Order: sequence, then structure tokens, then C-alpha cells
Amino acid sequence: MSRIEETLAKLGITLPTPANPVANYVPYVITGNLVFISGQISVAPGGPIKGRLGEDMSLEDGVAAARVCGLNLIAQLKAACGGDLSRVKRVVKLGGFVNSAPTFFDQPKVINGASDLMVEVFGEAGKHSRAAVGSPSLPLGVAVEVDGVFEIA
Amino acid sequence: MSRIEETLAKLGITLPTPANPVANYVPYVITGNLVFISGQISVAPGGPIKGRLGEDMSLEDGVAAARVCGLNLIAQLKAACGGDLSRVKRVVKLGGFVNSAPTFFDQPKVINGASDLMVEVFGEAGKHSRAAVGSPSLPLGVAVEVDGVFEIA
Amino acid sequence: MSRIEETLAKLGITLPTPANPVANYVPYVITGNLVFISGQISVAPGGPIKGRLGEDMSLEDGVAAARVCGLNLIAQLKAACGGDLSRVKRVVKLGGFVNSAPTFFDQPKVINGASDLMVEVFGEAGKHSRAAVGSPSLPLGVAVEVDGVFEIA
Repeated sequence: MSRIEETLAKLGITLPTPANPVANYVPYVITGNLVFISGQISVAPGGPIKGRLGEDMSLEDGVAAARVCGLNLIAQLKAACGGDLSRVKRVVKLGGFVNSAPTFFDQPKVINGASDLMVEVFGEAGKHSRAAVGSPSLPLGVAVEVDGVFEIA
Repeated sequence: MSRIEETLAKLGITLPTPANPVANYVPYVITGNLVFISGQISVAPGGPIKGRLGEDMSLEDGVAAARVCGLNLIAQLKAACGGDLSRVKRVVKLGGFVNSAPTFFDQPKVINGASDLMVEVFGEAGKHSRAAVGSPSLPLGVAVEVDGVFEIA
Repeated sequence: MSRIEETLAKLGITLPTPANPVANYVPYVITGNLVFISGQISVAPGGPIKGRLGEDMSLEDGVAAARVCGLNLIAQLKAACGGDLSRVKRVVKLGGFVNSAPTFFDQPKVINGASDLMVEVFGEAGKHSRAAVGSPSLPLGVAVEVDGVFEIA
């Protein structure tokens, strides 16, 4: 069991089954040492987490939705690594989109749900650059979408 | 005639003349094996395709607008390759922004217009990672903007 | 004094102190020759530049806000280069998000505030690919957020 898998176990995290896109795109592309992962939306095993921050969803629920996006990213990353998360060298960049009312300005706090997860799981290697912006609407009406770039060995 | 050009001919696709930005940026930058292409908006040879999904534009028209963005990306990519599209190794990432009313949740279906085109033209190498999100407004009032990262030989 | 520092002096530009994120992410990540810099918002030394284009902010003020984002990007880039901006080979990509009313279509003109700055400071190497899109709301209510990818020696 790798150190990362031990950390996941210790955190009580079971990675979701990585979702397969149903269109002409793929969950990730590896180019050189970089893995580009498709935007992962806040769909938990129980279903999509829908809502608009500043309108019908609390900050706390938004943070939880972003964490789900992070879990989905790590599940895809594990697949990209052929199952071996110890090959992850660095979380390079997260791009966070928050379903936002025009009066909601706490996109960074929401995306912390994904950012904190990366550091919990990967430690120093989990510290990443990121952007956090508002979006008027996201696929399926979900609350959060996050894409990512990762460096692997 | 390269295999890709043959495919374009077979599909009846004439690439548009790549648009030149009128500001202090360029259509693409090559770094290592990667080509970063600027956001291409849905401007067809006949003019801009304007509209907001979920408000004054049908899903079908949105898909067509995304396909136009894809054509503009391939035209820029061809210029980046010095005219030789057989140098394209992989479509790495598409970033799709859909001009969306707050009640429109089918951004993925819209961006399929660009994604499907990539696979029609480049086959397996056209399968890419992507993000598809809503935007409250895009340049000129167009319906779709898509940027991209590509790997070339 | 490097050529870039001379240019900054000539332009009368004093770089701001690079802001430190207060969450589990970092201002930049270096992978290979690429630097990914976190989204920089329009926060000047005097405070955040807030507003929504097409609603309560003029185009001119939006351009100035984008320039501030550009200054913040260069400040982070300098830190990434260990203080030596002459290591910058190329501005690769800027991703510009403009706080926009649904009727505002001049995102490119706004983001020119950041693009023009890159070319003023880095010359030909400052010419970059970019995207410019609207966002319904941004962190703190600021007018503009711009992230970036840079190539360094």
C-alpha cells in the first residue's frame, strides 16, 4: 500500500469510480509529464450536488461540493497513473468554477474544498496554483466544476 | 496531401482563414511540444454567431456555433504547424465557454460541437480533455468561445 | 540591473509585493520550463478594484483593473524567477475573466489592459495567447481576474 493510499485510508476516503464521459472527449490526456484532467463536476455517488451560491446554497454546502470535485479529480488522476498515486509529483493547477449569483463573492472559500483535499492527500506536493471564478450556470445545474493539471513521474 | 487534409476534404471542410488578433496578443504560442491557442469565438466567414443559450438560441444552433470555434482552432493550429496538420500528435485540452442564461445546463452538449469535430478530423488523436462552463456574456455577444492546448511533433 | 528591470523603471512601474494566498494553494507552481500562476485579481496597493462592466464601471476603469492584474502576475513571476525577470522566455497564455453584466461584450478590450502591459514590459516575448470571457461575479467583487502560464529559462 503506497503512502498516498495509506493517507486516503487514514482520512476515511474511498475514491469514487472515475466517471466516463459520454461524448467525444476523455477524462484525461497525458502529454510529457503533465496530465490534463477534464472539468469534474460536483456529482457524488449519490447524485449531482446542484445549487447556486448566493441564491439557494450555503457556503458550507458549496465547500462540500468542491471537495467532491476534488475527489473526482483524484479518481481520474489515479486512473491516469495506472492505479499508482505515488507517481504524482505535484498538483500544478486547479481551475475552479462556482455557480454564482451576481452578489456572491466567496468563490475562493468554496474552491478551498478542493484545495484543502489536495493538501490533505498529497501533502506539500498537493499545493497548487489555481483560479476561482464565478459562472452563471454549470452542467446539470451543479454547484461547482474544477479541472486540473498535474505532474507525474 | 496529408491524411488529415484528405479527411478534411472528405468531410467537405474548408478551413477558415485564421483570424489575426488586433491587440497585443497572438493567436498561438508554441512552448516545447505544446501549442496554446487563444480563445476562438464563434465567428464564421459570414459573421459572428451571436446568442445566449437558454434565452434566444436553440441547442442545435449552439452546437453549430461550437463547431465554428473548433474550425477556427484547427485553422490556427494549421498555421502553428507551418501548414502541416500531420504534425499534430494530440488534442490535449479544450476549454469551452457557453453564453448561458442561468437556467441553461447543457454546456457539455453545446461544446460537443467542437469535440466531435476534433475526433472527425484527427481520429483517436482528437480525443481530448475538456471543461465546459457557462458564461454570462462573451466577446461581441457570441454564443461560444473555446481555447485549446495541442501537442505537436 | 537587467533589461527588464530597466524597462520597468523607464515605464515608472513599481511591482507590488506579491500577495500570499491565505488558503491551501500557492501563488505559482513551476513544472519543467513552465510557470503556472494563480488567478490574480484586481487588488491594487490601495485596495480591491471592484465593479461590474456594463453596470457600474467604465471600460476605461476595467482596462486599468486588468493592468493591475497584470502587475500582480509579473510580481508573482518575478518571485518564481528568484527575482530575476531576465529568465522569462515567453508569456505563454493569459486567461482573463471580466466581471460582466449580460449586456457587456467588450471583454477583449478590458483584458488588453493586461496584454498591453506584458508587451510593454517583455517586448516580443510578451506576446501571448489568451482567452477573455465574462463572469457573473469574481472574488471580493473585483472587476477582473487573470491567470497565466509563462515559460522561463
